[in-house]
Amino acid sequence: MSKKLVVQKYGGSSVKDSDRVKAVAKRIVSYKTHHQDVVAVVSARGDTTDELESLAFEITNNPPEREMDMLISTGEQISCALLAMAIKELGFDAISFTGGQVGIKTDRIHTKARIITIDARRIRKALTKNKIVIVAGFQGVTRDDEITTLGRGGSDLTAVALAKALNADVCEIYTDVDGIYTTDPRIVTEAKKIHTITFEEMLEMASLGAQVMQARSIEVAKRFNIPIHVRSSYSKEEGTMITKADEHMESIAVRAVTCNKSEAKVTICDVPDKPGVAARIFTEISKAGINVDMIVQNVSRMKTTDISFTVPKVSLNKTLATARHITKTIGGGNILQDDQIARVSIVGAGMRSHYGIAAKMFKALADQKINIEMISTSEISISCIIERKFSDMAVKTLHKTFNLERT
Amino acid sequence: MSKKLVVQKYGGSSVKDSDRVKAVAKRIVSYKTHHQDVVAVVSARGDTTDELESLAFEITNNPPEREMDMLISTGEQISCALLAMAIKELGFDAISFTGGQVGIKTDRIHTKARIITIDARRIRKALTKNKIVIVAGFQGVTRDDEITTLGRGGSDLTAVALAKALNADVCEIYTDVDGIYTTDPRIVTEAKKIHTITFEEMLEMASLGAQVMQARSIEVAKRFNIPIHVRSSYSKEEGTMITKADEHMESIAVRAVTCNKSEAKVTICDVPDKPGVAARIFTEISKAGINVDMIVQNVSRMKTTDISFTVPKVSLNKTLATARHITKTIGGGNILQDDQIARVSIVGAGMRSHYGIAAKMFKALADQKINIEMISTSEISISCIIERKFSDMAVKTLHKTFNLERT
Repeated sequence: MSKKLVVQKYGGSSVKDSDRVKAVAKRIVSYKTHHQDVVAVVSARGDTTDELESLAFEITNNPPEREMDMLISTGEQISCALLAMAIKELGFDAISFTGGQVGIKTDRIHTKARIITIDARRIRKALTKNKIVIVAGFQGVTRDDEITTLGRGGSDLTAVALAKALNADVCEIYTDVDGIYTTDPRIVTEAKKIHTITFEEMLEMASLGAQVMQARSIEVAKRFNIPIHVRSSYSKEEGTMITKADEHMESIAVRAVTCNKSEAKVTICDVPDKPGVAARIFTEISKAGINVDMIVQNVSRMKTTDISFTVPKVSLNKTLATARHITKTIGGGNILQDDQIARVSIVGAGMRSHYGIAAKMFKALADQKINIEMISTSEISISCIIERKFSDMAVKTLHKTFNLERT
Repeated sequence: MSKKLVVQKYGGSSVKDSDRVKAVAKRIVSYKTHHQDVVAVVSARGDTTDELESLAFEITNNPPEREMDMLISTGEQISCALLAMAIKELGFDAISFTGGQVGIKTDRIHTKARIITIDARRIRKALTKNKIVIVAGFQGVTRDDEITTLGRGGSDLTAVALAKALNADVCEIYTDVDGIYTTDPRIVTEAKKIHTITFEEMLEMASLGAQVMQARSIEVAKRFNIPIHVRSSYSKEEGTMITKADEHMESIAVRAVTCNKSEAKVTICDVPDKPGVAARIFTEISKAGINVDMIVQNVSRMKTTDISFTVPKVSLNKTLATARHITKTIGGGNILQDDQIARVSIVGAGMRSHYGIAAKMFKALADQKINIEMISTSEISISCIIERKFSDMAVKTLHKTFNLERT
């Protein structure tokens, strides 16, 4: 029987001080004593990345991205060296590597590079020598040996990509929460930990506001079918397994309720209702670097239509300026804005085969006298834009309506 | 006419905060506007190295050296990225590199590696593109791409070795003092800055207690005849040039007075006066990792002799234990110790051709009723061990005796 290989990722809060580093070292060593090989990916300690960034901003308001990568990649290098020391102190052999040293090659897009290839030979060689391997997360090098970083959620991506390259049995993501919940436990005290969730559901939740993992890493895990175990570095308890849909497992109609309060709504009224208009609007907005989320176009009235969409609140001013510019060239009436909205969503792979879920959601909100301003659906989710002040009430109501406290 | 190339090195205090980094950037840019190419080597900011080391010691009392190098090499990586940012902010093109990225290959002796080769192609290419090149000091990589550091004074060594590899016109070492002085200005207010000094004299001064540069980098500069300009990053004033002896320049008999208070004296009394005894003693002491400095053996009395030597005060206890062990096997009497000594030295290449320097030194000390306990001479220096409490008085006296306030 071949030895099991586990790839683990420890976030910044898991290694924020020397006591936490020692605790993580103990956890890693416990796998080794159970005859498993371990490759651990570490983020920068606590607030290190923020501190390094603020050093840069003391120098310039516009730090060059190549130098920014040179600067902030040191955060992970520090934590992986410290973790290797802590493991050796426990009497086990360990070795730390930068992203470049373990052959993580990326494209040249500094501060948000994409991994192109991983040459895992050096890690394999270290594992063969019975070493525990510690890898600096969030970073790689280009073919010209330039240091790059992978952008937000980059350490998760390092872990998932290494799990693929090494053909690992499981990829464990350690965070400061102990798994994925049916909704935010700070809003609904009855929220329950989800034991198993599909990649699709998790992707949908990530894009609808769940903070635990970035969509990017889940996409990679889904593509290569790498099971992910999201769990807490503070306890031994099982967390949430993210896997592909199991045919034998009954799909649950509604798995979770999510809420996103970081968006604003923009409506361009009375734009001409003819082919190509929507394309033109969203091409211009995209060129301005604005990330549009939900788009709703109402039916035509008198040869014109209203187009509504949501954007991150931070992009609202830029969006309004762009929208004004567009209506000057294509025609259009008032531009309305609302930054006091929330998007409340229900997610569940079983929606595909269950009828009446949407109606049940809308009725539950109506019973609470919550007005729905926009609706958008995907194959496995339904989202409603409502007034932000009702968001907690809506989340509580939906959690109860779909009996999530009993899962 | 080909463009001049200057290699500069900025120490930790020169880049300790963002204001200092900006000031250094301005200085570098001023060379560029005078049509010179610049390669700047930077140390870690202020106390960064100490802080990183203490992080390691929070984890373990015995940090593995490979991981220590991984950890502390980040200090220079941070400062070189910040300096490149500051230069770009001034509108000049700059690029920062780690030791590994610019092809500084070392042996495998972690925490005190030696440079084996430098492949300067990448720096040359950047200079051709009119970029200012910033290099992380104090570090390199092995042939297996393991990160190494060069030990104390390592950034000076990086600068001198790069100056050699790039065939630079001059190597400037920026520190927080503005040059080499005839003696410590804190002791003798009349101390004068030395304008030119030979490699030999500087080497002698470094080994006799002058703190400005490590002997190691001066040796390399001497071997390859690379002129070094030691100067302050706080002013535009010329500092001290360290060069090979100029045949046209009259050798000055006494160039400087140095003082070293960090040593202790040990005497092993009545050891057998026969061949091989001294060799045996100092082999054992060297095996114990103790760095012996001055050695004096008195003439034989009754087939035995006394051997005195000095060691760093921190090694005194270990030395005494080793000495006791030795006398048990080879014979010998009391072991005396004195940790209240100072070594006062005069240095000057002109001693070779001037008579009576030693006699003048001894008389000057005698006139002050300072007793000389040990004497040691090299071709260009004379050192006396005296009671530590007289050291300042001795330095002042010798500075005046040899008219150093008039240089």
